[in-house]
Amino acid sequence: MRTTIAFLGLGSMGLPMARNLARADFDVRVWNRTPGRSKDVPGARSAPTPAAACEGVAFALTMLANDPAVEGVVFGPDGILAALPRGACHIGMSTISTALCRRLSEAHAAAGHGFIAAPVFGRPEAAEGRQLWILPGGADADIARAAPIFAALGKGTFPMGTAPKATLAKLLGNFLIVATIESLGEALAVAEKAELDPAKLLELFTGTLFGSPVVQNYGQRVVDAVFEPAGFQLALGLKDVNLALRAAEEVGAPLPLGSLVRDRMLTTLAHGHARYDWSGFVSVIRDAAGLPPVRTGAAG
Amino acid sequence: MRTTIAFLGLGSMGLPMARNLARADFDVRVWNRTPGRSKDVPGARSAPTPAAACEGVAFALTMLANDPAVEGVVFGPDGILAALPRGACHIGMSTISTALCRRLSEAHAAAGHGFIAAPVFGRPEAAEGRQLWILPGGADADIARAAPIFAALGKGTFPMGTAPKATLAKLLGNFLIVATIESLGEALAVAEKAELDPAKLLELFTGTLFGSPVVQNYGQRVVDAVFEPAGFQLALGLKDVNLALRAAEEVGAPLPLGSLVRDRMLTTLAHGHARYDWSGFVSVIRDAAGLPPVRTGAAG
Amino acid sequence: MRTTIAFLGLGSMGLPMARNLARADFDVRVWNRTPGRSKDVPGARSAPTPAAACEGVAFALTMLANDPAVEGVVFGPDGILAALPRGACHIGMSTISTALCRRLSEAHAAAGHGFIAAPVFGRPEAAEGRQLWILPGGADADIARAAPIFAALGKGTFPMGTAPKATLAKLLGNFLIVATIESLGEALAVAEKAELDPAKLLELFTGTLFGSPVVQNYGQRVVDAVFEPAGFQLALGLKDVNLALRAAEEVGAPLPLGSLVRDRMLTTLAHGHARYDWSGFVSVIRDAAGLPPVRTGAAG
Amino acid sequence: MRTTIAFLGLGSMGLPMARNLARADFDVRVWNRTPGRSKDVPGARSAPTPAAACEGVAFALTMLANDPAVEGVVFGPDGILAALPRGACHIGMSTISTALCRRLSEAHAAAGHGFIAAPVFGRPEAAEGRQLWILPGGADADIARAAPIFAALGKGTFPMGTAPKATLAKLLGNFLIVATIESLGEALAVAEKAELDPAKLLELFTGTLFGSPVVQNYGQRVVDAVFEPAGFQLALGLKDVNLALRAAEEVGAPLPLGSLVRDRMLTTLAHGHARYDWSGFVSVIRDAAGLPPVRTGAAG
Repeated sequence: MRTTIAFLGLGSMGLPMARNLARADFDVRVWNRTPGRSKDVPGARSAPTPAAACEGVAFALTMLANDPAVEGVVFGPDGILAALPRGACHIGMSTISTALCRRLSEAHAAAGHGFIAAPVFGRPEAAEGRQLWILPGGADADIARAAPIFAALGKGTFPMGTAPKATLAKLLGNFLIVATIESLGEALAVAEKAELDPAKLLELFTGTLFGSPVVQNYGQRVVDAVFEPAGFQLALGLKDVNLALRAAEEVGAPLPLGSLVRDRMLTTLAHGHARYDWSGFVSVIRDAAGLPPVRTGAAG
Repeated sequence: MRTTIAFLGLGSMGLPMARNLARADFDVRVWNRTPGRSKDVPGARSAPTPAAACEGVAFALTMLANDPAVEGVVFGPDGILAALPRGACHIGMSTISTALCRRLSEAHAAAGHGFIAAPVFGRPEAAEGRQLWILPGGADADIARAAPIFAALGKGTFPMGTAPKATLAKLLGNFLIVATIESLGEALAVAEKAELDPAKLLELFTGTLFGSPVVQNYGQRVVDAVFEPAGFQLALGLKDVNLALRAAEEVGAPLPLGSLVRDRMLTTLAHGHARYDWSGFVSVIRDAAGLPPVRTGAAG
Repeated sequence: MRTTIAFLGLGSMGLPMARNLARADFDVRVWNRTPGRSKDVPGARSAPTPAAACEGVAFALTMLANDPAVEGVVFGPDGILAALPRGACHIGMSTISTALCRRLSEAHAAAGHGFIAAPVFGRPEAAEGRQLWILPGGADADIARAAPIFAALGKGTFPMGTAPKATLAKLLGNFLIVATIESLGEALAVAEKAELDPAKLLELFTGTLFGSPVVQNYGQRVVDAVFEPAGFQLALGLKDVNLALRAAEEVGAPLPLGSLVRDRMLTTLAHGHARYDWSGFVSVIRDAAGLPPVRTGAAG
Repeated sequence: MRTTIAFLGLGSMGLPMARNLARADFDVRVWNRTPGRSKDVPGARSAPTPAAACEGVAFALTMLANDPAVEGVVFGPDGILAALPRGACHIGMSTISTALCRRLSEAHAAAGHGFIAAPVFGRPEAAEGRQLWILPGGADADIARAAPIFAALGKGTFPMGTAPKATLAKLLGNFLIVATIESLGEALAVAEKAELDPAKLLELFTGTLFGSPVVQNYGQRVVDAVFEPAGFQLALGLKDVNLALRAAEEVGAPLPLGSLVRDRMLTTLAHGHARYDWSGFVSVIRDAAGLPPVRTGAAG
């Protein structure tokens, strides 16, 4: 018998993930706040509410934009907390606050459900290609049960312990990405001012000590200095940096590099660039050095 | 006929480099400020002064601690500027200021010498094993002539344009290393406070998006939180960060991440840890989060 | 006929303020979460709930610790929103978020009440001695009606426009206080390291360009480097800095000096000094310079 | 018999100071790098070189732009070190590095001269009106001998101990000025974004806790957001902030607020505003909040 899954949230990440589950022969029931996207998941049935999607399922997956969206879908009217069968398991794959993650763990436990936080590294293309890295946190038995689901979605799992720890790991990973962008942004701005070719400098960096996927991908963005279209929107990036700052404050730790990036992102938004990619705060670094914020003219 | 090389500066980097040149069948004449280390370079002759080492050579290599040391050896009494034959070439491999690098380029040009700045990435072990990355900057013809020397010392060269640009590239590379350490230090301190295993988190980082030599090497240092013995001393690291800040100021660019690390290094020194590795400023990050500055007791 | 006032919150600030109102011949009804303090306001009647305190009053004053306390007293069961007579006016004197302030303005308007935000500058001694500075924000007519109340509590009022603007002005004032402490802390730490007498330097500062109440009061704290007992607790100071950062983010402005102080406060708390005065983050500045965090031994 | 004084440096500060000395019936001999300004000091004789100005004098005063200018006038050819009579005293009133100050103390002591560092607080108008604050550092006997000179130049002296301590006190005072500007700049930018009138907020600040000369003067500049013409040029301000950072580093202390302001100043210069007043880095704070960097249109 096929495992039944409720999939809630068909955004740019959720849609390809739901498709991969349907293709992998799971019995998928989908729900999305804005209707209509359900038809883009061949083989899945559409449900009118989160609660309706959960009838009789073994798993409910959520892939939503932020804390309020998750709160609504879980605790709101027609939410999954009340609808999920006892013994079923909620797999929360959104990037949320550690505080909400703790609340979800407790509420589901009280309701006789499992709860796994399973945030991911990877953009829509990676979701499409089943190339996500998945960071599950929760009870070992639940994670073991969910293994076939993770196998259908990504290329590897890194269990992180409890659900809040998995969420924290994801937030710190995103912090590390923006910290990398900040340091590349600062270094390449100095280089460009000194007429040292930023592309050549990046080649040195990736060819010697700094060659990692994040440096390669974002380094090219920084060299090109073109921040539209966005792979991941700046406003969402700011949300994540704020979540990392708050998670750090909860455990009594400062995160000054996070504050630095947060300020740059606020300035980028204050300059009217809400549609920039989250690496677009590099425009502020460039401007601070007296360079044009973005590179224009002939293709970079 | 063998190419003759004067090698000036037999410190922890210079000594293995001079040995590799001697082994590669160059005719090497060595000089060191503190005498006695010359005997550790089998096959090389020892000279009493930098000038004496330069008689009739085709190349003079310098590998010295800082600007004043280079200034002394080049411009001082018995310095190489006056002693080097016309047409010979000075290969400066020390990490120095861009200002001194410009002064060296000009002075050697005026004296009819070539000048290549050729700073390196790599610690003493890399120097020993001919695994250095070399960043030559200068006239193309000079760099071409020096190719056999670079081949005897390292595993690859990344030409950067002019000599000051090569020096700047090296300073920005060191900046990027300490920026990486800073971001890992902040992230892992939050993790440790939250009882998320730092070693497991580092494994996630290196196994997914952040796997680069610098993250692997320094990440382990940050996890271990043990900063002695030093691979590269903190005081020298502070010198390099200050050089990067000054180079950035010369071209009118701020480098706030550099200032942040500089302040942490100053505090590490103010706490009496001059013998720490340059990654030892992580002790200050840990302390700021209320963690013990270094990990003690049973092996980490 | 005497004006009737409900006074909610008899903490270290509220208690002397309620007393001053009772002395000024207002008809005061008091309520406090922890009962028993009511007897310390001679001439006032005690009420069992906020709602009960509000029966038939012309004004309700709140002086509470933070957002949740105000939310509870206003919107909670037995809260004042439902109990206050139409036409009465709520004067909120607590330092709260601009978001909550907007919510209060709207809710009271909808209920047919006036609402004035009237945060204050001044510590308990100033409250005792009717020396508070009051920053009222709200409708002009309401502020005019409240003038006798303000006259009984403080030595001057600075109308700031709307209620949220008054709240913001207070948050920015507190920001300016900690910014002043930060700058004095940094300067005096350098002086002390250089064996330049910090007391003499402070005398220079106050005697020439920098002589203001805030520099005089907190400058002495910084020189003495003794942070207990607290005049205003560090945890409350951190709350206010976070409110300022959030208010700035709402309007799209960074506040890097706020982030710097916030990080120092987090470290002070991580070091276990929750009982320090809010100026106690100077201990972290001192430690960063290699000075003992607090001055000990013979009286400073 | 009148005391003879050599006055070296007739810039915007030096010129009115020399005039005040001449008016006070000192026998003044003046020298300036660019000749011609000597005629603007009625009653003074002009000398062709610093050395010539020093013949037979009791005091030599220097009021010059920076370290190199002082080094040239003291140690250069025709410098005052060789020319000053034994027993005479050099009063250095320029803002210089603590390192140069120490060098001057030692060199003059070796030459049998006194040396007082006597930097000042005050702009050209204050110099004109004998309203300078003077911070003398050096031997008590020398300072006592110089008292009539200080009386002719300023309205008060604050002896700071040794010469380097006086220099440090001045640098920390300038640091405190820019720190004050930074904090006002941040606060007023948030206010302006929130449509809270910055002028009204400044009035609150100066009328309550923050009323000091520096807040009053620079607060108005920040509200006006007009940075030309300069009272004290940005490039000189940056020089002083860098000197403060270096002096702090010498004693092993970080000065993060100094680094923050330094970066803003670098950006202001990178934007082409070398002619701005040193408070002009507020334009960068404004821009970071999405406000126009300077206020334009009708007079502020």
